[in-house]
Amino acid sequence: MCSRSMASKTPVGFIGLGNMGNPMAKNLMKHGYPLIIYDVFPDACKEFQEAGEQCLGFSLEILLLCAKSLGHVRHFCVVSSPADVAEKADRIITMLPTSINAIEAYSGANGILKKVKKGSLLIDSSTIDPAVSKELAKEVEKMGAVFMDAPVSGGVGAARSGNLTFMVGGVEDEFAAAKELLGCMGSNVVYCGAVGTGQAAKICNNMLLAISMIGTAEAMNLGIRLGLDPKLLAKILNMSSGRCWSSDTYNPVPGVMDGVPSANNYQGGFGTTLMAKDLGLAQDSATSTKSPILLGSLAHQIYRVMCAKGYAKKDFSAVFQFLREEESF
Amino acid sequence: MCSRSMASKTPVGFIGLGNMGNPMAKNLMKHGYPLIIYDVFPDACKEFQEAGEQCLGFSLEILLLCAKSLGHVRHFCVVSSPADVAEKADRIITMLPTSINAIEAYSGANGILKKVKKGSLLIDSSTIDPAVSKELAKEVEKMGAVFMDAPVSGGVGAARSGNLTFMVGGVEDEFAAAKELLGCMGSNVVYCGAVGTGQAAKICNNMLLAISMIGTAEAMNLGIRLGLDPKLLAKILNMSSGRCWSSDTYNPVPGVMDGVPSANNYQGGFGTTLMAKDLGLAQDSATSTKSPILLGSLAHQIYRVMCAKGYAKKDFSAVFQFLREEESF
Amino acid sequence: MCSRSMASKTPVGFIGLGNMGNPMAKNLMKHGYPLIIYDVFPDACKEFQEAGEQCLGFSLEILLLCAKSLGHVRHFCVVSSPADVAEKADRIITMLPTSINAIEAYSGANGILKKVKKGSLLIDSSTIDPAVSKELAKEVEKMGAVFMDAPVSGGVGAARSGNLTFMVGGVEDEFAAAKELLGCMGSNVVYCGAVGTGQAAKICNNMLLAISMIGTAEAMNLGIRLGLDPKLLAKILNMSSGRCWSSDTYNPVPGVMDGVPSANNYQGGFGTTLMAKDLGLAQDSATSTKSPILLGSLAHQIYRVMCAKGYAKKDFSAVFQFLREEESF
Amino acid sequence: MCSRSMASKTPVGFIGLGNMGNPMAKNLMKHGYPLIIYDVFPDACKEFQEAGEQCLGFSLEILLLCAKSLGHVRHFCVVSSPADVAEKADRIITMLPTSINAIEAYSGANGILKKVKKGSLLIDSSTIDPAVSKELAKEVEKMGAVFMDAPVSGGVGAARSGNLTFMVGGVEDEFAAAKELLGCMGSNVVYCGAVGTGQAAKICNNMLLAISMIGTAEAMNLGIRLGLDPKLLAKILNMSSGRCWSSDTYNPVPGVMDGVPSANNYQGGFGTTLMAKDLGLAQDSATSTKSPILLGSLAHQIYRVMCAKGYAKKDFSAVFQFLREEESF
Repeated sequence: MCSRSMASKTPVGFIGLGNMGNPMAKNLMKHGYPLIIYDVFPDACKEFQEAGEQCLGFSLEILLLCAKSLGHVRHFCVVSSPADVAEKADRIITMLPTSINAIEAYSGANGILKKVKKGSLLIDSSTIDPAVSKELAKEVEKMGAVFMDAPVSGGVGAARSGNLTFMVGGVEDEFAAAKELLGCMGSNVVYCGAVGTGQAAKICNNMLLAISMIGTAEAMNLGIRLGLDPKLLAKILNMSSGRCWSSDTYNPVPGVMDGVPSANNYQGGFGTTLMAKDLGLAQDSATSTKSPILLGSLAHQIYRVMCAKGYAKKDFSAVFQFLREEESF
Repeated sequence: MCSRSMASKTPVGFIGLGNMGNPMAKNLMKHGYPLIIYDVFPDACKEFQEAGEQCLGFSLEILLLCAKSLGHVRHFCVVSSPADVAEKADRIITMLPTSINAIEAYSGANGILKKVKKGSLLIDSSTIDPAVSKELAKEVEKMGAVFMDAPVSGGVGAARSGNLTFMVGGVEDEFAAAKELLGCMGSNVVYCGAVGTGQAAKICNNMLLAISMIGTAEAMNLGIRLGLDPKLLAKILNMSSGRCWSSDTYNPVPGVMDGVPSANNYQGGFGTTLMAKDLGLAQDSATSTKSPILLGSLAHQIYRVMCAKGYAKKDFSAVFQFLREEESF
Repeated sequence: MCSRSMASKTPVGFIGLGNMGNPMAKNLMKHGYPLIIYDVFPDACKEFQEAGEQCLGFSLEILLLCAKSLGHVRHFCVVSSPADVAEKADRIITMLPTSINAIEAYSGANGILKKVKKGSLLIDSSTIDPAVSKELAKEVEKMGAVFMDAPVSGGVGAARSGNLTFMVGGVEDEFAAAKELLGCMGSNVVYCGAVGTGQAAKICNNMLLAISMIGTAEAMNLGIRLGLDPKLLAKILNMSSGRCWSSDTYNPVPGVMDGVPSANNYQGGFGTTLMAKDLGLAQDSATSTKSPILLGSLAHQIYRVMCAKGYAKKDFSAVFQFLREEESF
Repeated sequence: MCSRSMASKTPVGFIGLGNMGNPMAKNLMKHGYPLIIYDVFPDACKEFQEAGEQCLGFSLEILLLCAKSLGHVRHFCVVSSPADVAEKADRIITMLPTSINAIEAYSGANGILKKVKKGSLLIDSSTIDPAVSKELAKEVEKMGAVFMDAPVSGGVGAARSGNLTFMVGGVEDEFAAAKELLGCMGSNVVYCGAVGTGQAAKICNNMLLAISMIGTAEAMNLGIRLGLDPKLLAKILNMSSGRCWSSDTYNPVPGVMDGVPSANNYQGGFGTTLMAKDLGLAQDSATSTKSPILLGSLAHQIYRVMCAKGYAKKDFSAVFQFLREEESF
């Protein structure tokens, strides 16, 4: 997938070096791509210094030369705006927290579109409203460049190990080019259809995930109160029609499985705040397409209440804890 | 599991020969157990005449003699009340539609308890309120007999092919005896714990099933409206964290899978009415144990509305159809 | 309403002297009815000693004599079982916390039905499942007596001031006799129809109350977050189509109204646990009649979660607090 | 309220002459304001010819002259874009169906902002997202003009009779000037606070209305199934804590009240589609402010399903019909 000789690798832009973007960018660098990086918080770029060799004050030519001559050395260059990234790289990946950040990075005063080159490939891995993705795609197209949405599933762990799943929307002809880069960061790169369908697939998956997680928590809690042993109940569900990822891979009840957040006081994993955000996107999409999502909406509201009641930073499987009777009352 | 020689098989009682009970009883008979059968609707027993040889007017001794001498011939005897079943058999299976029917069969004027023999094993495979199961168990115990609840999962097809799953609650010492019989009708016989836990496991599974089915229908419908191809979306969900039995084995969207009710206008399968009934049991159990079931309650109500709006006899995956925009308005 | 001369007043039985029953019974006594009282907790009867003159060791005849000769003196007699109450009084009021307690008081080993006299009038003011009311009515009728359900609305304050509302179900011919007694304890006595309809009316009212209270809390909270002043928003709602008892008489937002639980840290009023109980009854009735209650079920679950999260003893308007962002996270 | 002498009345712009805008504009004209009108559908303006005297080909000066000289004659002038309205009038009312239409009317290629005069007062009576109102207000302010949001409650009937309620958001100093105009079209003009709070009040009211309407429908349906007479149940609710506008003024059960949509097969009134739209706005506002709206979200989804199932054009009280068991299945 990343089989081209290193010597031919031109720099790739990477905007947004947060918890997810940081390990993703490093994986790209490990595969030999020199990076042009930017983050609104300059500190976010500092961490790169231990992961690669920063080219300070070097021109792009020197960066490329470095890449050619040294081969195995990892290089990156920090610049001061998305526009500067676009000036130096014709393939750019963005990984940002919200629709607003993505709009700013593309269409802002110093955004990518200010200096994007014709024919550039812009891949947005943020999870945002598919309607915003389509809007950005139109603006990018006007500049003669190509936009693809490629949100990820899998958390920080998968980002580090390069095992993310990318769901990609955009013109099919450009999918191969996108896959060359995304394949360095993920083990699964799925083409979903026209621009926005990557987001759509992500949103639908996470809505179903939230629903089945809450459902699993409710069923486990009810069963326990009815006298069932949690491990046995999980085993029965997992060989029956109630089986789902939340019951068989990420069970929310402490003591049922090892190596999941419920085994570690719901630390790590996929935060309740993030789930609430994704459910907000699902809600927005459902409202604008007039699609009824009875359980999806309720799941959204449950995670909103959890955020308000002190569960914001816990893994989303903490809904089991939220539903349980508190002992100290 | 059913390996004892036929000669040693004493008659087994079977009460309730409806859509499920009928094929279950026949499977028991195929394994060489002479049956003493009863149903409130006498016609329900008629169908047995083609499946075995009815012993009319014969005494129990003759029935047993038949069983011994003929071996491979299947015998059954129709009696006129649950009490009569209890008089002639010390192992009885009941398969009835509601809690009320079960109470009548056990504690009614001509119920099992009127003539049950000490040491009898009474197995109730009806899906009923676990609180009722516990109540029946107490009454049975007073008579010196043993009660186990053993509701099934899997529909008419699994009943016919002997592939049901039994979830069994009751005294663990008696489980082997129950399994001898249940193993003739199902491929999976799971011990769940004390009396009532079989029902509890069944109810919890079906509640989670309903939730994930509605969730799958919502996610698929939303994705389609956002421009995704249904087959592709199902594939993505099934390799991601949204995966569940309803998405990967029983997908509710026509055209995604073959051999499921959605491929056949939602005919066959597990009816919406039955799902509404099971969710009513989940609701009752949750109310009496004060367990919050936010999504479970809403799923219950959705199936109630579906029953009121003409979906009563369709498979429960028809919730996808219920959520879709109707075209003719 | 209570216009008969005192001399003619025969004793009335009163079973259940809890927070509600106690002031209710006292009001009856104030209207000149000698009482035969019973409570499973003997201490509950002790408080009566300051409210009236206890007849210890006197026979019923003496009690009646007292009533006749003294007129204005308030008399009561404590007995040791519901059966004993039924022996001494042919009009009995029961005020008990749950269906199980009511069944015990009527049909238990020392229940009313053991010694009820023909022609007695038995009025149950407990809030219980209407199906249980109907069942009790049947049993009472078999003994030649009359049963009416007459649950109340209005809390402890209304019980003290004699301003309860009674919703009465039963044979219409007996309504006048029931009203004679109930009118001493409430300012509103409404005939609702056949046995069980009193409960039905109570349950329907409280379900709608819970829904509109949560709705008011959500609307007020959303409006406040959108920048509206709470008092002004309440005023606007109350002159518009969003107006409801929860918005104009019992507003859940601190600072909007005086003299309501929200003005006093949600103390007093109608407890969250009691609301959860009534919603459980609504749920049971809806399940058994197959009536969809989408919002009613969700309201039920919300109050269940609140009970589990430490709001059990607060007034049910504390749902506003439950939905708010906590400040200390 | 509209007490200035007619001679002093300068023309008022009115954009959006749909079902609501049309009678509103006519009421303004009846109060002596010459109108400059525009609608994207030219036919919408034609109906005005019978209501007033159209000034064809006349200049603004002539229009004003007419107004002065004729006094009681009603005048209006049709122009061909919002920009043209802004050129001829310094007070403009907009009444449009969605946020998108409002953005187009203000910021579009031929929008108001292209030719708005300094000091103009622009009042938007559309029901749209408060966030959009705030955005428009900012743009209007940049041009030196003033923007207020003033959505209405009350339907077409109230628009015709001049009895609308206006909820007004904007700078308080300008409220008197807005009230002069709005008072000609409504009997209630309420100041709500900063820009956007008019929308916020409207949205909160309609969300609570939807919740209490569905709650009323559920409670009435449940009560009827439990044997209560609908009229009696309504009476009981209305004197108890379940009382709300939907139960006492707009009861959804046929036969309970006269003169409401439920008495006329749910025709007329406030359409289910419009309620679904307003709930979508409530949802958007709640999502963006992270306010949990558990019942509000579910109410939204219920109206979405109703739209999909053939209830789109019926009054929103038809939810009672939606919940009932259909007879013909």
